[in-house]
Amino acid sequence: MTKPTIGIGLIGSGFMGRCHAHAFNAVSGLFDLPVNLSCEVLADASEEIASAGAEKLGFFRSTSDWRSMIEDPKVDIVAITAPNVLHEPMAMAAIAAGKTVYCEKPLSTTADSALKMTEAAEDADVVTLVGFNFLRNPMVKLARDIITSGEIGAVTGFRGRHAENYMCNPDTPHSFRTDTQGGGALADIGSHIVSMARYLLGPVTATSGVSQTIHTSRPKSLQNLERAPVLVDDMTHALLRFECGIVGSIEANWAATGRTMDLSFEVTGTKGAVAFSQERMNELQLITGTGPLSGFTRIEAGPQHPPYAQFCPAAGHHLGFNDLKVIEVAQLINAHLRVHSCDTDFREAYEVQKTIEAIQRSAAEACWTAV
Amino acid sequence: MTKPTIGIGLIGSGFMGRCHAHAFNAVSGLFDLPVNLSCEVLADASEEIASAGAEKLGFFRSTSDWRSMIEDPKVDIVAITAPNVLHEPMAMAAIAAGKTVYCEKPLSTTADSALKMTEAAEDADVVTLVGFNFLRNPMVKLARDIITSGEIGAVTGFRGRHAENYMCNPDTPHSFRTDTQGGGALADIGSHIVSMARYLLGPVTATSGVSQTIHTSRPKSLQNLERAPVLVDDMTHALLRFECGIVGSIEANWAATGRTMDLSFEVTGTKGAVAFSQERMNELQLITGTGPLSGFTRIEAGPQHPPYAQFCPAAGHHLGFNDLKVIEVAQLINAHLRVHSCDTDFREAYEVQKTIEAIQRSAAEACWTAV
Amino acid sequence: MTKPTIGIGLIGSGFMGRCHAHAFNAVSGLFDLPVNLSCEVLADASEEIASAGAEKLGFFRSTSDWRSMIEDPKVDIVAITAPNVLHEPMAMAAIAAGKTVYCEKPLSTTADSALKMTEAAEDADVVTLVGFNFLRNPMVKLARDIITSGEIGAVTGFRGRHAENYMCNPDTPHSFRTDTQGGGALADIGSHIVSMARYLLGPVTATSGVSQTIHTSRPKSLQNLERAPVLVDDMTHALLRFECGIVGSIEANWAATGRTMDLSFEVTGTKGAVAFSQERMNELQLITGTGPLSGFTRIEAGPQHPPYAQFCPAAGHHLGFNDLKVIEVAQLINAHLRVHSCDTDFREAYEVQKTIEAIQRSAAEACWTAV
Amino acid sequence: MTKPTIGIGLIGSGFMGRCHAHAFNAVSGLFDLPVNLSCEVLADASEEIASAGAEKLGFFRSTSDWRSMIEDPKVDIVAITAPNVLHEPMAMAAIAAGKTVYCEKPLSTTADSALKMTEAAEDADVVTLVGFNFLRNPMVKLARDIITSGEIGAVTGFRGRHAENYMCNPDTPHSFRTDTQGGGALADIGSHIVSMARYLLGPVTATSGVSQTIHTSRPKSLQNLERAPVLVDDMTHALLRFECGIVGSIEANWAATGRTMDLSFEVTGTKGAVAFSQERMNELQLITGTGPLSGFTRIEAGPQHPPYAQFCPAAGHHLGFNDLKVIEVAQLINAHLRVHSCDTDFREAYEVQKTIEAIQRSAAEACWTAV
Repeated sequence: MTKPTIGIGLIGSGFMGRCHAHAFNAVSGLFDLPVNLSCEVLADASEEIASAGAEKLGFFRSTSDWRSMIEDPKVDIVAITAPNVLHEPMAMAAIAAGKTVYCEKPLSTTADSALKMTEAAEDADVVTLVGFNFLRNPMVKLARDIITSGEIGAVTGFRGRHAENYMCNPDTPHSFRTDTQGGGALADIGSHIVSMARYLLGPVTATSGVSQTIHTSRPKSLQNLERAPVLVDDMTHALLRFECGIVGSIEANWAATGRTMDLSFEVTGTKGAVAFSQERMNELQLITGTGPLSGFTRIEAGPQHPPYAQFCPAAGHHLGFNDLKVIEVAQLINAHLRVHSCDTDFREAYEVQKTIEAIQRSAAEACWTAV
Repeated sequence: MTKPTIGIGLIGSGFMGRCHAHAFNAVSGLFDLPVNLSCEVLADASEEIASAGAEKLGFFRSTSDWRSMIEDPKVDIVAITAPNVLHEPMAMAAIAAGKTVYCEKPLSTTADSALKMTEAAEDADVVTLVGFNFLRNPMVKLARDIITSGEIGAVTGFRGRHAENYMCNPDTPHSFRTDTQGGGALADIGSHIVSMARYLLGPVTATSGVSQTIHTSRPKSLQNLERAPVLVDDMTHALLRFECGIVGSIEANWAATGRTMDLSFEVTGTKGAVAFSQERMNELQLITGTGPLSGFTRIEAGPQHPPYAQFCPAAGHHLGFNDLKVIEVAQLINAHLRVHSCDTDFREAYEVQKTIEAIQRSAAEACWTAV
Repeated sequence: MTKPTIGIGLIGSGFMGRCHAHAFNAVSGLFDLPVNLSCEVLADASEEIASAGAEKLGFFRSTSDWRSMIEDPKVDIVAITAPNVLHEPMAMAAIAAGKTVYCEKPLSTTADSALKMTEAAEDADVVTLVGFNFLRNPMVKLARDIITSGEIGAVTGFRGRHAENYMCNPDTPHSFRTDTQGGGALADIGSHIVSMARYLLGPVTATSGVSQTIHTSRPKSLQNLERAPVLVDDMTHALLRFECGIVGSIEANWAATGRTMDLSFEVTGTKGAVAFSQERMNELQLITGTGPLSGFTRIEAGPQHPPYAQFCPAAGHHLGFNDLKVIEVAQLINAHLRVHSCDTDFREAYEVQKTIEAIQRSAAEACWTAV
Repeated sequence: MTKPTIGIGLIGSGFMGRCHAHAFNAVSGLFDLPVNLSCEVLADASEEIASAGAEKLGFFRSTSDWRSMIEDPKVDIVAITAPNVLHEPMAMAAIAAGKTVYCEKPLSTTADSALKMTEAAEDADVVTLVGFNFLRNPMVKLARDIITSGEIGAVTGFRGRHAENYMCNPDTPHSFRTDTQGGGALADIGSHIVSMARYLLGPVTATSGVSQTIHTSRPKSLQNLERAPVLVDDMTHALLRFECGIVGSIEANWAATGRTMDLSFEVTGTKGAVAFSQERMNELQLITGTGPLSGFTRIEAGPQHPPYAQFCPAAGHHLGFNDLKVIEVAQLINAHLRVHSCDTDFREAYEVQKTIEAIQRSAAEACWTAV
């Protein structure tokens, strides 16, 4: 009995494109899927890039015309890793074609655009997934399960951060990251901690933020070293009020010297607390109870934390970043098959983006702002 | 040649009183002071308590009348560990008597009161010191030296916190800590992280804060279990704008389940960063430079970090909390002798209190507030 | 211009078989290889298991006859993940057929057998690689580079350990792991720390070991709960004398409650030290230099540590266990193409096994033993 | 009602002498002792040193004649911090005078001498205490309580170490530490990990050790830079067989670059494990139980870990090295009053020394040796 086959079309063969391709190639060997996957078409900016990418990443065909790829009848799922500004037209075309859409974050350059995409997808009843890959970590899921189960009592506080150092150098040139359409530290990596906060605690209703541009000019490009002003934030701190009644704070910072991936949180409850940093992504810190033997327990990822066991039957064999994307793709396939829904569909990605924009407005106007 | 003698009068023999007495008894054996200390009089609420305290803590005489102790001609330095509400009358009396005043934090119950005390002390040219003991840690001093020296470049960010768990239990009764005059998590322990922030980076000019009362009622006392509403904060988050041009955030939280003393900060600069938590008070985390061998270095306290060597000639022999108070008393004696001034005199304590009150106003009015 | 193709034949589809298959499927997309890989044949114990494995793991054909797979002209590399006792006949057949052999550790059940296999491979000039995957970690390679470069001065000491907890339960039944032919904690996981010690410091010349069986009986199998005595070690400690002149110690322990993967070492030199544990496999601890800012630096894996950049262009995106196997396969392919030789060929695996047997003899006879 | 007074005589005012004096001055204010202490006489090598020491450390009188101090009728307890070679005559004189003897470790330069002292003390029924101060740590006591209570099941393994870096520099000159009478890393700091092992698990019955001299010559003194050969070990590793039936290993290393005080152990049991390092002396790592929320718990020292509460009523206020000595002195006073016996009396110190000498013989003869 042969399994049915699902065809994949991928747009982009850069960092995230390779990451997607790796996941599509690896997922069948690791997860028990009821279908086979077939990497059909790779689309990229030119025929040459697309063709080289297809050979390297294991796709049958290549094209420089993403619209034709979307139309390809063998393509069931369209994966978008193109620049942010192209997400909307690509996703709208895929939705129009009735394809499942797997889009990298941020969903679009504005919340308005994201809402338009969301409504189109919902109207067409198309399955969507946005790549908030850090939520796929079994230890983050464990944190949410702990919170939801009441293990730490009623939640009383939240402190979150996403700090990296990749924009520390003032000579790192302008790019899509510093574009006023969807750029800046808050939009780029702050979206990870906002999505994490929502994943753990639910919606944010109001915010007071403050932003700072640390390096006020950057070279126009690697080729043109003339400096142009930076109009986006390098760092934002924000107070958050959650619908569940608590308050907390986050920081987004891409000029955080010394930090490589401090996507971290501490959730405090009346009976315990749970803490995590992506810098040690295979560990979760948990405290519950009191008494002379209590303290924060360092829980190490293991087969008792689904879906870790898909990767290895024994504890101590760490998951890595690329594995998170494999987990995400397994969720995508199951959502495509309507086995379950996706945590981070377009609707959720829109809510994240709306929260980000509220923080940006709050920082611009120096006042509390409703989301 | 005999050294001159300085007489000590201490008010209070509770936790902080014992801590002061320990420091006065220990400092001469550890530091090379040009004077001898003499523990003259211990004052406390009753003759009985004072007398027992004097015997236990090594004071020659005892009294229930703190005013007479202040007047005692053998007393040169008055140490105040009484309830906050008594700090003002006690300090004013000591200032009037021309004595050096060593007062526990907070300096008083309001910034207005603190300012009155400050101006009186300055008018009388009396030496003052407020017990922000965590600033005495050699690793905190090292952090400031690193920042000041430019080792981490220009400062770009600050993230601070003081989180403890001692008010987690909703059945912990009301006390001076929950009094609306000077009580609440922000005033009680937030003052430590505010003083730390000022110590490291200088004045705060504006703030936007948000507060929360987690346990909205508490028993009136250990004896009277009838519950009364709590009118102070259990937790406050605040955005800070510093005079030096940067922004940052702090949290004060005394209901932080699992945290025993997370008085912590991360100061980020253009070329490095420095991080600390009092939970590991003998360590400082530092990163400078880039390249394949760079990362956060865990600096362990040792004799190369003054005044550690006063306690031990070799690294690895940790300092403890009580040692911080000994360092503080050594500073007090040198200030009394006009060898140098105190970091945290009444003026500085007033500035801390003013900042705290600005955060409180900001939280009450839900808007940015100038300090 | 099409790249030439290399055909893969895999024996076994259990944990390590899946791990091999994942690596063969992923390596082309992550590394820039001058060849394409083709997963040709999967051999396993029955046609049914082999066929299911082939579909799941992406192999074209399947068989229950591993000898026919080895003879298959499209198979260039034979990967062996079968039970240890079968390694010798399988490898000898592959060598006879002139195929490159990739064998899981331990190479065989005795050093004599391993030597026979080694000499056959060398006589036939066949490329061989044994799966000591933990040596593929960029942080372990960095440790060796640091040692070799003299960064920590002359090496003066070594302390190593491989501790896991998977045999803690006395009701875990007998298996090949507890067979007196090649079983026991020292042979099973001690081989990892012995290979690591040799990788970092070179050959061991003499040893004094002591072993202990903690659980002296175990059920015969999951089906037959009758208990039979355990004749192998659960834990071995050993002193080691290295050819380079230093002494050190190791522990192998598979009943180490609480340890999931403490494959760890500290190498001390006259000018510094380097420390590592697989429990935090993306970190290396390094100290060099003295002075008030020195201390152990936590180096996080990043693109400056080859071949990390093949997996991700940015630091902070951790590698996981399965990624180590991908690195190993990339080395295998380059060795097959005679681009470079393998660190852990059959000869090296034989040397590890000889060292293990010397420790076993030493423990049995309670005296120092030459390797 | 006045408490009776106990008089203290102290020999030595160097590092350990100051440490003792600090403890004698501090203990009454921190512990609730039924007696008052009186620091009577300080003896040192010259009248000048003794006199300066007495003033600084708070002793009434001083002398260069330690024999007269021991005879002083006001002296009840004799504290010895003189060079090791003088411990025997000083202690024998104090025993002859019927005084309680508090002696720094090692008890003497040979086990034979230590035994002679032990038997003399026992014959005279004199209270003795040897300064193994690291055993006074509440977290170490907690570790023993956990082991004794069966919390981690039956003990199955031990791994210990005392590593420091203070002899790393080959130009650090000879001193009593490198004297063949009682010198060397094993005797100097190895005695701490041996005493810790005995404290936690009981007697060692047999051992196989190996030693190494890393720096084979050193300057004769700070004044005479002519180099003389080093005849003691810089580093020793040893396998240990315990009377309780388990085996384990220890390392003693005073040339461990990067380590300031890695006096550490991991004790493994059938149901859990406990781990500690003096580098984080206010923490104990404990694991018990299994399941998805299990892991090593970082227990922080607090008032629930006696006698921490004597120093502070709240957790998070760390103890430091000097506090350990205060705890030791409190035990000394209670032993002097026959309230309880001392863990580490002369008999116990002799047993430690006998174990050390067995390891030395084993290393010299390269064979297993009974203790």
